[in-house]
Amino acid sequence: MRRLLCRASAYSRSFSSSSSRPSSHGEEAIIIDGKSVADEIKQVVAKEVATFKKSVGKTPGLGVIFVGTRRESELYVHNKTIACAETGIASSCTKLSENASEEEVLASVMKYNEDPSVDGILVQLPLPKHLNEDKIMSSISLLKDVDGCHPMNIGSLALNRKQPLFIPCTAKACLQILLKNSIQLSGRYAVVIGCGNISGLPISLLLQKHNATVTRVHALTETPEDYTRRADIVISAAGCPNLVRGDWLKREAVVLDVGISHTQDPSSGDLHLVGDVCIEEARKVASVISPVPGGVGPVTIAMLLQNTMLAAKSRHENDYRKIS
Amino acid sequence: MRRLLCRASAYSRSFSSSSSRPSSHGEEAIIIDGKSVADEIKQVVAKEVATFKKSVGKTPGLGVIFVGTRRESELYVHNKTIACAETGIASSCTKLSENASEEEVLASVMKYNEDPSVDGILVQLPLPKHLNEDKIMSSISLLKDVDGCHPMNIGSLALNRKQPLFIPCTAKACLQILLKNSIQLSGRYAVVIGCGNISGLPISLLLQKHNATVTRVHALTETPEDYTRRADIVISAAGCPNLVRGDWLKREAVVLDVGISHTQDPSSGDLHLVGDVCIEEARKVASVISPVPGGVGPVTIAMLLQNTMLAAKSRHENDYRKIS
Repeated sequence: MRRLLCRASAYSRSFSSSSSRPSSHGEEAIIIDGKSVADEIKQVVAKEVATFKKSVGKTPGLGVIFVGTRRESELYVHNKTIACAETGIASSCTKLSENASEEEVLASVMKYNEDPSVDGILVQLPLPKHLNEDKIMSSISLLKDVDGCHPMNIGSLALNRKQPLFIPCTAKACLQILLKNSIQLSGRYAVVIGCGNISGLPISLLLQKHNATVTRVHALTETPEDYTRRADIVISAAGCPNLVRGDWLKREAVVLDVGISHTQDPSSGDLHLVGDVCIEEARKVASVISPVPGGVGPVTIAMLLQNTMLAAKSRHENDYRKIS
Repeated sequence: MRRLLCRASAYSRSFSSSSSRPSSHGEEAIIIDGKSVADEIKQVVAKEVATFKKSVGKTPGLGVIFVGTRRESELYVHNKTIACAETGIASSCTKLSENASEEEVLASVMKYNEDPSVDGILVQLPLPKHLNEDKIMSSISLLKDVDGCHPMNIGSLALNRKQPLFIPCTAKACLQILLKNSIQLSGRYAVVIGCGNISGLPISLLLQKHNATVTRVHALTETPEDYTRRADIVISAAGCPNLVRGDWLKREAVVLDVGISHTQDPSSGDLHLVGDVCIEEARKVASVISPVPGGVGPVTIAMLLQNTMLAAKSRHENDYRKIS
């Protein structure tokens, strides 16, 4: 069975032949402000943290494991740590060198698994290639899997009439944005671009759980635009800049950009985030767009805090219930 | 979050407006002989059972739990027991009354979980409504979950670069039929009708694992035929007779009927199986059809035997390896 690939090159076949559809759409799309959605969630989490501290006498804690020196990952970890501080969640980060052994990484996970001050564990992905990501991710205690990517959580997300302990943060963020904008899911057609375990897969499973009709297209799908053009909702998590052009979209479609690529400013060396969606074209066709940066990203971090709080509450359910 | 429904009535909206497309297709579809596919698999299993007995000195065993008096279920259990006997697998069946308590059913599962002579456990579904199916299914030992529907197995089936211990038998049967008929999956468009945990869900996940582009349509999908008409492969697991008409299909499509409904002969009282596909119409359009009865059904039973043998080999890996 071959590994599912999400290579930009494979998508590019379609991309290169695409051009912007002349728009007769009167108004431009609403651009989602992910930061304000995230701020609202963080305010709720901060209140819960305060209640938790009073009732349980402890501080909810997130343990992060970061292997290597990847700049983008460093930035993400930094943002997550700041967000924890903003809401009163304690965070600690175990930094391991690029050539850390699998045993070292597993030992760090085990330490957090057993640490009573740690409620949620996050292993920052991607891991260096010599490490068995699957083995490491599966070693996280199910009760602390705030990223929601343990097979048991994914299985429960997939199965009808079953709820996972934690829903992966990006999928939860997409759902939050859709619900916040009163986008109906039941019976509507959604296309998810990208097949990754962290984003594309859980997003498609969560939309299915909400009774959408879902197609997941990937690098081996011959003409992804044949699917997206019919979709009421397009969520792109391919990591391929400018993949989704204006003529890939149905008029009034809802478009969530979850793709993240990095470009480096040659003079300053600063990293810039770019998504999958050609926003200049898409805004003339779609009704709602969540952009990159400032769309799903901040909400995903807020969901990590929410999941960490959820983990803390589950572990101390009786104490927390007393006064909340 | 609302329970996903697969009601025939919802499908019927579309069904009632359908009519057969006049066919200009020269040849009629190949009708799959599921029994001969199943016989081949059973022959291989029988050989493995013989080798296992010699090397390990034990007989692989399947434990079946059957609650109630549902005639169709009784028939399935009977067929599975016969198939076990044909290949040399020992089977035992725990029969519980229609009003058995949850504790009684859970105790029966626990007994099989701990019984060293039982390698695989099958709880015959559906269970009477007063029982918590989810709780009961999740109590089956992961190592004996030969039906493959434990959340951990479903999660591993869904995740990329991860393999479940057991793949659900119906999904495995569909894949076997497709591969046996040299149907390419990678990059092709497959539509799975039905959202059940036993068939529709694992079938769609397995096709995705083989790089097909998959849409799962369900009772809340407004016009399922809009999807099926574009599909290279249609797998119907809705349990709604005559749902899939000729004009629901693209010419040369591959059609696997996994739907099972029962009609009773008013005079003899005999049960007859009927599938989801209107075969008289579909055979004029499709290139390959797996019918009901005699298609996926017998292969599914063969896969149960294969999974049971797999469970036995895993549990006695070292002994089995010595001579096989």
